Parts: sequence; structure tokens; C-alpha cells
Amino acid sequence: MEDAVKIEYSDKIIRTFRVRIQDKPSYLGLLTTAVGDLSGMFGEIRTVHIGKGYKVRDLDVYVDTEDAFNNIVNEIKKFDGIELLEIKDLVQDVHEGGKIKVVSTVDVSSIDDLSIVYTPGVASICRLIFKHPELAHKYTTINKNVAIVTNGTAILGLGDIGPVAGMPVMEGKALLFNVLAGLNGYPLLIESKSAKDIIETVKHIYLTFGAIKLEDIKAPECFEIEDELDKCLDIPVMHDDQHGTAIVVLSALINIAKYTHTNISEASVGIIGLGAAGSGIQKLLKAYGVKNIYGTDLNQDIIDKFVQRGGIPADYTDIMEKSKIVIATTGCPGLIKPEWVRKGQIILALSNPDPEIDAEAAIDAGAVFAADGKSINNALAFPGVFKGAMKANAKCINNAMKIDAAITIAHFAEEGDLVPNILNKKVHDAVADAVEKAAYMSGVSKNIR
Amino acid sequence: MEDAVKIEYSDKIIRTFRVRIQDKPSYLGLLTTAVGDLSGMFGEIRTVHIGKGYKVRDLDVYVDTEDAFNNIVNEIKKFDGIELLEIKDLVQDVHEGGKIKVVSTVDVSSIDDLSIVYTPGVASICRLIFKHPELAHKYTTINKNVAIVTNGTAILGLGDIGPVAGMPVMEGKALLFNVLAGLNGYPLLIESKSAKDIIETVKHIYLTFGAIKLEDIKAPECFEIEDELDKCLDIPVMHDDQHGTAIVVLSALINIAKYTHTNISEASVGIIGLGAAGSGIQKLLKAYGVKNIYGTDLNQDIIDKFVQRGGIPADYTDIMEKSKIVIATTGCPGLIKPEWVRKGQIILALSNPDPEIDAEAAIDAGAVFAADGKSINNALAFPGVFKGAMKANAKCINNAMKIDAAITIAHFAEEGDLVPNILNKKVHDAVADAVEKAAYMSGVSKNIR
Repeated sequence: MEDAVKIEYSDKIIRTFRVRIQDKPSYLGLLTTAVGDLSGMFGEIRTVHIGKGYKVRDLDVYVDTEDAFNNIVNEIKKFDGIELLEIKDLVQDVHEGGKIKVVSTVDVSSIDDLSIVYTPGVASICRLIFKHPELAHKYTTINKNVAIVTNGTAILGLGDIGPVAGMPVMEGKALLFNVLAGLNGYPLLIESKSAKDIIETVKHIYLTFGAIKLEDIKAPECFEIEDELDKCLDIPVMHDDQHGTAIVVLSALINIAKYTHTNISEASVGIIGLGAAGSGIQKLLKAYGVKNIYGTDLNQDIIDKFVQRGGIPADYTDIMEKSKIVIATTGCPGLIKPEWVRKGQIILALSNPDPEIDAEAAIDAGAVFAADGKSINNALAFPGVFKGAMKANAKCINNAMKIDAAITIAHFAEEGDLVPNILNKKVHDAVADAVEKAAYMSGVSKNIR
Repeated sequence: MEDAVKIEYSDKIIRTFRVRIQDKPSYLGLLTTAVGDLSGMFGEIRTVHIGKGYKVRDLDVYVDTEDAFNNIVNEIKKFDGIELLEIKDLVQDVHEGGKIKVVSTVDVSSIDDLSIVYTPGVASICRLIFKHPELAHKYTTINKNVAIVTNGTAILGLGDIGPVAGMPVMEGKALLFNVLAGLNGYPLLIESKSAKDIIETVKHIYLTFGAIKLEDIKAPECFEIEDELDKCLDIPVMHDDQHGTAIVVLSALINIAKYTHTNISEASVGIIGLGAAGSGIQKLLKAYGVKNIYGTDLNQDIIDKFVQRGGIPADYTDIMEKSKIVIATTGCPGLIKPEWVRKGQIILALSNPDPEIDAEAAIDAGAVFAADGKSINNALAFPGVFKGAMKANAKCINNAMKIDAAITIAHFAEEGDLVPNILNKKVHDAVADAVEKAAYMSGVSKNIR
């Protein structure tokens, strides 16, 4: 949990102030003190230009709110000898132009090169695949391509903002596929809220891809879409908001169990909120061997499905009383009052950006372990899970593969931490290897006859 | 037409022989002479390893047929002191693993970077686009993304080999988009032969893209699909086999007209074969001002449509007799007999890889100018055409844009050539600029209110 400070820091609003400061020793000091007094924190300070008697500097400033930001702007404007030239939004700057690119991996610098990669040379490769369809995996990118499919109905914590406004998230997933697993992520925005349309569309285009990642599609449509596509297609289909989250939650629980000497299988687990994440967590914990899973939701249909899958219905006061482990995925900040927490409980309050109960408050109220959603990032799971499934030429991503992914992720956490650093590529390689092996051993690789 | 030799050269089968040759002065000479005697041509010769008393070399050899290749293999095996270690297929080697990749364009080397490009930072960009949808062009890749849509029913000259066997061509188009225009080409393989399915599928996913390129879809479905999508979607939709080809044919004709002092508008033009390419050529030549266009095809429905668009039906003997300019796009090698050629005629026999009449034979028979399909490569047109249309934020690609693209391409050809070198990036930049301007001037840019 060493990253905690860094992560909270990153949660703030970041702005870059470009200022022209006169060359007097005290001026930068005055400015930084003033910004600090208004609870702004400094990131990098870069010198952009050295003029005669002045410097132009870019100051990255982190603040909590737009108000704090406006106060700082007003303060800077008051200084004689300091001129505010420009305010830049670092987040916007980084996203400008989008975040991914489709590039050639072959050299095309002569007409001869062109005649090999394009006509007439390419015809021989087409003929070869026509004759031996299995060679498509060798001579095309298909088995490295993952469709990142959304209809924009449940983008992050933002809700139904539509697929186009969700594109920055899909590009983010695609870039993580590239950086962490060397896979090609293709965002695919579907303009429809009907499960049937989405199923039909994906069925028509799935041949382009080695796997389908469903993303930020709201419940309950997400369940029908995943079930139906998983049934019809012979390539892996995974709704990340369900299973990516579940895998990382299981990783965290495996480590928490180790630190607290808890037997997860025998422990009673309560899930508050049975949407995509809550449902995925139930499915995976059950497969992992947890016997008693209590759950509640505002939607009775969703509770019924939970019960059909072997869950035990309970209201949330019941859950708080009976469960050794409480997992909340409700989207309601502050839902869990400190007085509800039982001594020795393990509490994962996963709603982002604001949890159902602060980890510190839960600990103060007697919890033996508490964490919020910032540590449970599904980017720890999906790159390696898809890579492993595609390497094995698997026809699905089953529970054995998900559980081995979770165990592998848990293993890489530093002592005391819930999960490892997302940017540690060894984690993703190891997850891919574990998932590939699990696919073979559980008989879902198409390479096994 | 300086590239003619190179292009024919590239048409051959390329194989790489890895041989271990004893260090005696005459051995390499003996080998190369023997290969030459069997009509093999040498490409590069690379020394791979220098051993004690021998060298291992890779020899790239170009042959016309598999038989010639087998003869060379047998000959090499006869030599004492030369051991054939391995035969490699250069074309297959280059295509291995596919030819494109989706990469991140932003740096992600710290948790702070991640919090900007992914959660929580990305949420602010999603909110911004939700509030101001026009900012999707600024903060996502959408307006640089082109879907390359095929159902695999008319792949190159190979016919209906299915979408997966067509993937190497789609990746080839995507890599050309990257290399020549800096656009993101997304292959999209649709598993259906129904025009309705393809239309519905593209309508559901079009929001991901700034433009749609239809590719290698057979006639007549290609016409219905393009017409319907063009009508429904407010982004450019272009069937490349029709219009990409037509643009480059018009470029070539503009230059031929210059060299032969022909007035294209007043000349009678005959088109033999009214499939995708022939129909596209008719539409564009009519828009360019050609008054008399004769045409024929084996399919009466297609002839009817041709006539509805203002074409004059004629059989092919008629066409050969009446037309100053004859354009053949039939897929039938040798269809045009030399005795049918009239003195002073201009003949474009465009079927690939083997034309309706060899250019030399046509010239010998009295044609003033003749060329085959190798010079008419639509990759000269599509990268710049799509780039220009997307830069202008155009809602379609109209005739004005296509004609200005053709004029621009023609302008860049070296004196005596039909068209410029495909790899000359200045051509594609200039085409993009011309098309962008034409979009504005013809009022199809969405930026004009």
C-alpha cells in the first residue's frame, strides 16, 4: 500500500501555470508559498525560456477543487513582477489527438517492398489462408486483436454518457493492451442500447478478432450480451466490469486472508450491490470455493439471479452482522456507517471515486482490514488474461483461468500490499502464462483435439 | 513508366536459398551461372556466417513459375561443395505475425502517467465530450479512424475467398493508411453475404470512425451497400474498388490526353465490363464531362443501371469500333484481339494480373497509347482522399473531391508516365489538400453552417 499517497495525489485536478517571473531571488519563493497556503501542491517546475531579466516557467499545480484552483489564479494575478501567461490542463493536453495509433510493422520503402506486402505478393498469402484457414493465426494479426466493445451505458462512474464520450476510456484500455501485453485493442463503439443489436453486431464482426472484451455496458443487458456471445462464439468473450474486477478482488482477498489468517472458503462473505462487479465477484468467489455468500441489491430481478446462482439473500444490516468479509459495490459513497462495522471484519468498499466507507474509518470502527476501490484496478487482470487465453487459442475464459490469474496477481504483491504495481510487466507475463496453462489443463484450448 | 521493369520483376515468385558454399573462388560463380541458365534472377546476396573453409549465404532468387523454382532446386542439389540448407519464402516471412499493430501514442511509465491517461484522469475528458460532443474530434482518434470493411466476396482477383483469407489485404490497406497518410485503418471482417446485414452492422459501429472504406465486396451488393450507407451516415463512405480505381484511371487519362493531344470530354469512351471498377469509372468520367460513354457487360441488370446513369449500351465489337478510348475491366485475360484495335486508339486493359490485351500488342496493332492494370493502383488515391475528406469534416466524398484528387495525382506524374510513384508522400499530402479544399468549396464540410 505504499502507492496510497501517490494515488491520492493523482486524484487531484492538475493544471499547469505558465508564468513570466522577474529575476529577483524572492519571487519564486513568494509564489510557491502563496500557492501552498491555498492548499495547492507543486508537481514539476520547468524553465521554458530565459529572457533578459526574467524567466518563463511552467508550474504543475495539483488542487482538490475548481474553487481552490480559482483562488490560486486570483492570488497569482495580484503579484507585481509575476505575469500569468497561460493556464494549461495537463490531462487535456495528454489526451489531445487521442491516445492510440494503428501502425505498420513492416518496412515499405521501395516499390519492391510494396509488391510483397500489397499486390501482387499478398495474393499468395490470401490463397494460403483460403486453403489452410488455421494459418490465419500465423499470417494475420487476428489472434492478437481484441475488440473493446461498448455502447457507453455505464462509462466508469459516469453512467450512460453514450459511446462517443466513452471513447477516451476505450482508447485507454487499448493503450494498456499495447503497453502491458503487446496486444492490439480496437475500440468499437456500438450505437444501441438493445442487447440484441449488440449481440448481432458482434457476431457479424467477430472474425476480425481473437477475443471480445465487453466494456462499460450497464446491467442487466451486460449479462445477457456476455452469456449469448460466450455461447455462440468460439473465441473468448469477457465482460471486464464483471470478471476483471472479480479477479482483482479475489487477488486482494487472497493476500488479505494471508495477512489476517482467514480461511476464505469457510468465511462468510457479504456483497452489497449486485450489479456487474458484484455479480462477477459472486461468480468467481463461488468457483473459488466460498460456501456462504450473502448479497443484496435494490433490484429484485438481480437478487433472484443471485439466488439462482447459489447466493443467500439478506438485507444489508444482516450482511454487516453476519459477514466476516464485506464487499460493497453500490456506487453510494458513505453507505456504510462506522457503527455498523463489526470487530475483526474485512471491508472492501469499492465504489469509485468515493467508497462506501473510508478505509481509515472502517479500521477505527474495528475492522481488521479495509481497502477502497483505488487499489482494485482491473487493468491488473485483463491484459494478461486475454493474452493467455489467446496464446492458448482458448474458446472461452473459464473460472479455472480466472482463478489462476487471481492467484498469480496475488503472488506478485509486495509484503503488506493487496496487489502488485500495475506497470510491473512481469505480473502481466506471469498472468498470461498461468491463464494459458489453465486453458490447456481445463480443456478449453482449441489446440486440443 | 520507368518502374515498368521493377514492377514486372516484383511480379515473380521470390524465394531465398540458404546455402553453405566451400571457399573456392569458382563456386559462387558456378552457382549463379547455373541459376541464371534456368532463368532465375538474383536479388540480394547476404553472407550469414563465415566458417572455417566455407560461408553460409542467403540468395534471393526471382523466378516466373514454381517449375522454374524446382529446376533450380534440383540443380543446386547437384553441386559438390554447395549444400542447400534451407529454402525460405520471402513473402511469407514478411507477412508472418501480420502487418499492423495498435500502439499507444502517450507515455505510460509511472502510476501518475496512468492516472492521467486512464482512471481517474480520463473521466474529465469523457465529461468534456459528453458536454461538447464536437470535442470528440479533438480528444479521441475517431476522426483519424477509417474502417476497412469487407465480407471477402471479391478479394483482389481471387474472388469469394471469405473475409478471413482477405485479412492480409485489409492489413495491407491499413498499413498504407498509416505510412502514406498517418490515418488509423481498422480492418473489419463481416461474416455475411447479405447487403442488409453489412449495412446494419456498419450503421451500428460507425461512431467509432471518421470514415468507412468498403473493400473487395462483390457487385452488385457493393452498390446497394455504398448507396445506403452514404445516404444514412454523415461521414464519408467510399467503395474503393469503384472510386479509388476510377480516380486513378482518370489521372492516367488526363496524362494520356496531354501526351496524345486528346480532348477527353469530346472523345468517345468505351467501357468493357461494368462491375465495381467499370461502374465507378463511368460515374466519374461522366462527372468529369465525358459526353459519350459506351458500355457492355455480361449482366443485363448491370447494363440497365449503366443506361439509367446516362451510359450508351453497345456490344464489344461496337465499342472497339466507335471508341477513341477503350477501358477494359472484365477479369478476362486476352479478351481483346489485336485485330480489333483501331489505329490511334487509347487502350487501358486493366484486369490484373493478366490484362485483356498486352500493352505492346495493342501498340503494335495501331494503338496510340496502351497500358495495363499494374500502373493503375488505387493506393495512389485512397490515402489522400480519405485524409482530405476527414480533415474537412466532410459528410461524403463527392465527385468534385474525386476529380480534384485525380487532377492532383496526374500533375505529379513524371513526364511520359501515367501516374506518379505511390511512395512519394508529397502526392498523398497534395491529394489530401486538394480533396479538403474541394469538400469546403462544394459545401459538404460539416464545418460550414
